[in-house]
Amino acid sequence: MKLRLGMIGGGEGAFIGAVHRMAARLDGLYELTAGAFSSNPDTSRATGVLLGLAPGRVYSSYTELLVQESQRPAAERVQVISIVTPNHLHFAPAKLALEHGFHVMLDKPMTFSLAEARELARVVDASGKRFCLTHTYTGYPMVKEARQLIRAGRLGRLRKLYVEYPQGWLSEFAEGEAGNKQAAWRTDPARSGPAGAMGDIGTHAFNLLEYVGGLPVEQLCADLNTVVPGRRLDDDGAVLLKLAGGASAVLLATQVAAGEENNVRIRAYGELGGLEWQQADANTLLLKPLHGPAEIWRTGGGYVGPFAQHNTRTPAGHPEGYLEAFANLYRNFALAILADLEGRTPAPEVLDYPGIVEGVRGMAFIENVIASGRSDKKWTEFTV
Amino acid sequence: MKLRLGMIGGGEGAFIGAVHRMAARLDGLYELTAGAFSSNPDTSRATGVLLGLAPGRVYSSYTELLVQESQRPAAERVQVISIVTPNHLHFAPAKLALEHGFHVMLDKPMTFSLAEARELARVVDASGKRFCLTHTYTGYPMVKEARQLIRAGRLGRLRKLYVEYPQGWLSEFAEGEAGNKQAAWRTDPARSGPAGAMGDIGTHAFNLLEYVGGLPVEQLCADLNTVVPGRRLDDDGAVLLKLAGGASAVLLATQVAAGEENNVRIRAYGELGGLEWQQADANTLLLKPLHGPAEIWRTGGGYVGPFAQHNTRTPAGHPEGYLEAFANLYRNFALAILADLEGRTPAPEVLDYPGIVEGVRGMAFIENVIASGRSDKKWTEFTV
Amino acid sequence: MKLRLGMIGGGEGAFIGAVHRMAARLDGLYELTAGAFSSNPDTSRATGVLLGLAPGRVYSSYTELLVQESQRPAAERVQVISIVTPNHLHFAPAKLALEHGFHVMLDKPMTFSLAEARELARVVDASGKRFCLTHTYTGYPMVKEARQLIRAGRLGRLRKLYVEYPQGWLSEFAEGEAGNKQAAWRTDPARSGPAGAMGDIGTHAFNLLEYVGGLPVEQLCADLNTVVPGRRLDDDGAVLLKLAGGASAVLLATQVAAGEENNVRIRAYGELGGLEWQQADANTLLLKPLHGPAEIWRTGGGYVGPFAQHNTRTPAGHPEGYLEAFANLYRNFALAILADLEGRTPAPEVLDYPGIVEGVRGMAFIENVIASGRSDKKWTEFTV
Amino acid sequence: MKLRLGMIGGGEGAFIGAVHRMAARLDGLYELTAGAFSSNPDTSRATGVLLGLAPGRVYSSYTELLVQESQRPAAERVQVISIVTPNHLHFAPAKLALEHGFHVMLDKPMTFSLAEARELARVVDASGKRFCLTHTYTGYPMVKEARQLIRAGRLGRLRKLYVEYPQGWLSEFAEGEAGNKQAAWRTDPARSGPAGAMGDIGTHAFNLLEYVGGLPVEQLCADLNTVVPGRRLDDDGAVLLKLAGGASAVLLATQVAAGEENNVRIRAYGELGGLEWQQADANTLLLKPLHGPAEIWRTGGGYVGPFAQHNTRTPAGHPEGYLEAFANLYRNFALAILADLEGRTPAPEVLDYPGIVEGVRGMAFIENVIASGRSDKKWTEFTV
Repeated sequence: MKLRLGMIGGGEGAFIGAVHRMAARLDGLYELTAGAFSSNPDTSRATGVLLGLAPGRVYSSYTELLVQESQRPAAERVQVISIVTPNHLHFAPAKLALEHGFHVMLDKPMTFSLAEARELARVVDASGKRFCLTHTYTGYPMVKEARQLIRAGRLGRLRKLYVEYPQGWLSEFAEGEAGNKQAAWRTDPARSGPAGAMGDIGTHAFNLLEYVGGLPVEQLCADLNTVVPGRRLDDDGAVLLKLAGGASAVLLATQVAAGEENNVRIRAYGELGGLEWQQADANTLLLKPLHGPAEIWRTGGGYVGPFAQHNTRTPAGHPEGYLEAFANLYRNFALAILADLEGRTPAPEVLDYPGIVEGVRGMAFIENVIASGRSDKKWTEFTV
Repeated sequence: MKLRLGMIGGGEGAFIGAVHRMAARLDGLYELTAGAFSSNPDTSRATGVLLGLAPGRVYSSYTELLVQESQRPAAERVQVISIVTPNHLHFAPAKLALEHGFHVMLDKPMTFSLAEARELARVVDASGKRFCLTHTYTGYPMVKEARQLIRAGRLGRLRKLYVEYPQGWLSEFAEGEAGNKQAAWRTDPARSGPAGAMGDIGTHAFNLLEYVGGLPVEQLCADLNTVVPGRRLDDDGAVLLKLAGGASAVLLATQVAAGEENNVRIRAYGELGGLEWQQADANTLLLKPLHGPAEIWRTGGGYVGPFAQHNTRTPAGHPEGYLEAFANLYRNFALAILADLEGRTPAPEVLDYPGIVEGVRGMAFIENVIASGRSDKKWTEFTV
Repeated sequence: MKLRLGMIGGGEGAFIGAVHRMAARLDGLYELTAGAFSSNPDTSRATGVLLGLAPGRVYSSYTELLVQESQRPAAERVQVISIVTPNHLHFAPAKLALEHGFHVMLDKPMTFSLAEARELARVVDASGKRFCLTHTYTGYPMVKEARQLIRAGRLGRLRKLYVEYPQGWLSEFAEGEAGNKQAAWRTDPARSGPAGAMGDIGTHAFNLLEYVGGLPVEQLCADLNTVVPGRRLDDDGAVLLKLAGGASAVLLATQVAAGEENNVRIRAYGELGGLEWQQADANTLLLKPLHGPAEIWRTGGGYVGPFAQHNTRTPAGHPEGYLEAFANLYRNFALAILADLEGRTPAPEVLDYPGIVEGVRGMAFIENVIASGRSDKKWTEFTV
Repeated sequence: MKLRLGMIGGGEGAFIGAVHRMAARLDGLYELTAGAFSSNPDTSRATGVLLGLAPGRVYSSYTELLVQESQRPAAERVQVISIVTPNHLHFAPAKLALEHGFHVMLDKPMTFSLAEARELARVVDASGKRFCLTHTYTGYPMVKEARQLIRAGRLGRLRKLYVEYPQGWLSEFAEGEAGNKQAAWRTDPARSGPAGAMGDIGTHAFNLLEYVGGLPVEQLCADLNTVVPGRRLDDDGAVLLKLAGGASAVLLATQVAAGEENNVRIRAYGELGGLEWQQADANTLLLKPLHGPAEIWRTGGGYVGPFAQHNTRTPAGHPEGYLEAFANLYRNFALAILADLEGRTPAPEVLDYPGIVEGVRGMAFIENVIASGRSDKKWTEFTV
């Protein structure tokens, strides 16, 4: 059985909407059934035609979509809502969707502000519906393996973590180029929120840090920069962090590392060894014991644990990439909802997708890191 | 508009059937509508249920599927048939499908024998239907870029090519393990054909060699081995090759390289430089000029040509892998058929998928390489 | 003609003394002629025997060596003094050597304190003798190329630099193991100075940052940690830095990254592109233009500039490593001295070795980074 | 005590002579004392001056050197002769040196013909002197580790080996360029012998294959090509090989792989796993078990065996390269001679340098591979 999916945002020309749709398709667990793809009704309609939707299921606004779909018969109405709009348009449709009884898949960062995030958490709790936030990188099998190896104590007590997310695509004043929608909204405080690079990719790095290491951030010290003249938000930053239990970390996120693509990378070191993962070699996890040769753990290897295995589709040596990682979020979200519908308890591997708690912490990261960036004090308490 | 897809083979437990389905889903251009998933009707039915097919569209045999679907109204019947059975069951269903007016997507190697391949070529020609053979590796954007750079003369006249396909998964007598279906049929002359490793992966390497280099093989000299005791087909081989125009090549294919996964790799050298691609780093193409620093060409780079661009879904740095490469075959095949239906001429990028000619040459490779392996003469003419 | 070399420190069991001797030998420009290899006269004598020195040229103390050698005839006495003792024994012998008319090659960090460093700078200036500090990593050809490319404007104005130096060898309480001399003195405030990891390897990272980027540090913000229980100095740290001209940087140095060896690495990004070098792949410099494919610049490549060429001994593809980089310091120091002796002006490539200015800045780094580590203020002015 | 070294060949402008001298210097076990650096007396003299030799120890011919040195008092005369001339000038000076009581270090390939090689073997045996052939790549610590792991059974019985040596420096007609001495003699049958690429680098690959795998070649099948117009010897080749005990191998050697530097590489696969080493990452040995993650063995790792340890100078993470590998041959040769002089039995690690047996097999490889290249038969017996 396929879940019926409705999408808000993702009209022609959007980047992440297309990614969500491919991710939703890959495992055949969703049927895109309805959409409000743009605030421009013509664009929404055209996108619907392109995607082969029934005309009656293409809406002019998210409110229309949510209200009208909720009035359809249960066997027909959409069950899951994907929200792929810019940040300032996350909270309202997500809240409304939950309140109308839909499960919600929401693009990151979760909301426009921490206050919205806290409010959304209340709505999620009250709704009894499932909620997933697309922190894609936690969908990679070898990221899951990294987390599980640390949880299992393979590195001993953690001491130091490095997470970095270097991009170069905002090295120029791209928001000044006609037609560069991606650059335009991501550097616009009215649509992106108080943070630029820290919101767009810093939150990914922060989520990866807490997901893999399992240690909440307690204090941070940020150096934020706006490097490109004319830009209105940070496009570069470095953050020192103190984690629960005494470990420390460094988080680097920049969009002005000219020549870099998108190589998210994490390294963690404990008493007994270290590990390293990077998206550019996504199917490899390096495990480095304190003594003895480093080991190359690979997606699909017979020795990897159940979390990684569950999120792998092909045998070792058939590289799985970004879309597969993204699809893992969609797949697990569907499997959880299907288990609910059938009265089964989803397996821990299925439930291992980012949710509302991670979303709130991500928004707290944004607000704390901005505050620290403006502060003369070295350490800022991480408050949520 | 989605093309209606019927599948022959690919019942539960099969590897490549699931891959075909994911590839067909990714871009939303197909709707899996019918299937004869197994010669066992119960397995076929169960697979159909799992995939959410209408019960009336799940068949007990491929003949039933092809005959009955061909009798449905045009707006309802399947348009494309995917055949994902073992090698000995390629020819008959492919022929029947074409004769009943379906486009055919066929798993490699094309047939059980070269004679069948030649016959299928006649059927394809006579049918006027489209035909695609899943030589997956030619679906990678950077493999396409490699071919185009060579065609454009970036390496000058070619002199030497190396292609290798090392696997380790048949290092043990896996066909003796209960339940190892993959190993069982691939090492069984009655189902796999006259060649083992050379048929299963050697044909991929051969196809990659001719696709990237653009030079037909004219002579070859093979050393074929059956390394694992008890095995009935070759599991290892190395081939020296002479190409049209005076270049030479070496092809390595083995399934007993213990510890290796699936790292297909090609290197080509001409008067002006060389290039290198390997699946383990699939989004990178190394271009090595005779003078000057080597260059790292990347999927999604702004400088790559239209063939690579057309086969890329995400910006540079979002790794695309094996399933995306496979999906490129399905996507291009669909785009070609859709263009036909709409009376448009498909773009060259769209038509750049492996077809019947490549399939016949692949079967010729198998028969020639087996003949050479048995010969005391150094060089065997490549006959088709 | 070979320069006559005297060595202070480097008795049996020392690590860096042996490295200095290999570096001095490689190019045949020095003859090790005298030594005071240990404060233990027996050890000094035994080392002298092992090294084949004339017994009369092996001394019981550095004072004896310097005084007696200075009294030998000019054609016989040593010309260059290498000092390879622990940090607390750098200043006094260096000062005495310079005052007795010897050129000095000194291991890093330069002295025990910044005050000593400033004083040594005065002594060097007054002496008219040559002085070299062994910041080895600046001896690598591709590090030199990196500096020259940046100087030539290939990256445009610099914006962001990352330098890191992760080691794992102090992950355990190694100073508590009998016989671990290296760990013992490096973690002992009385011999190492106020800093542990920051003095031992942080100064290398700092030097590399300023050498490659060419931009002096102006402010810093340090998070220093002593991770291993019982340790008396920092063994881990991360530093945010502000550079002259508005660029920023991050410096990571740790000796508790379990499983890491010694992979010093630097990345620099400017308006027009980035570059990356790491010791683990020392003969490669990645040059990443903002637009266009990244380039792999290689030691020995025909396209590299004169600074890299001058510091390379073999054709491209014959890897040169740590000892060759170290030997480049010795070689250039000798070539400078020989040019002086012959009344020639040394070429810029020859004079490109670290000296007293770098040494003073390195000691300033240590004192500033320690001060910042203890401060509640975010930014500490870099004072020299 | 240092061994007194005399050198034949290696005048200014020669490549390998300078390499030999650096290798001899690195560990301080030799003193270059005499030389006949060129058949041109002026060049020989000038080189002697440059190297700081006593004028009376610089000779106009190798005969003069060997005869006159042999008449000097034992405590003064050279003990080891390094011969670094082109191939046609190997046999005569080596024979004369051995007959005059000198130990001989000879550059590869050993002689001009197999007949000379057999004769030299008799001379070596009769002389009682030590003999070393500079197959450099066996001097790398991780190559030694590879051999020892295979000897210890870590891969089980070997099945398949791949060895390759791709270079690009002869992609153009370099022997036609004025002043390109290296290209000139290496492509001249009168100086290089019957083989070009196969003699120059194919013998290295062959030696590496037999050294690492420990299995003598029994049959071979060669495809040799002269790719560059006007060239008089092979510049490209590929060889299929049958090894003792049933394993097979492939050897690739080319000097027309445009854009390639010098990346010698070997892979070996047995019943239990595989391993891989390549010069471009010389301090890494990949060990790939049939089951379980691949391991990254590193020079200087605490877990490597005594052969690798003995040939390592610095801790893990300080890369050692080509000159260190070369120096390992010189060092072990010296240690063996010194042990002889002191009446000690050299350790197995010391004696693990290539000698006369490897030299004869190398020349047999050249003659057999040329014969096979000309034969229509697939397999040529390897005769010595």
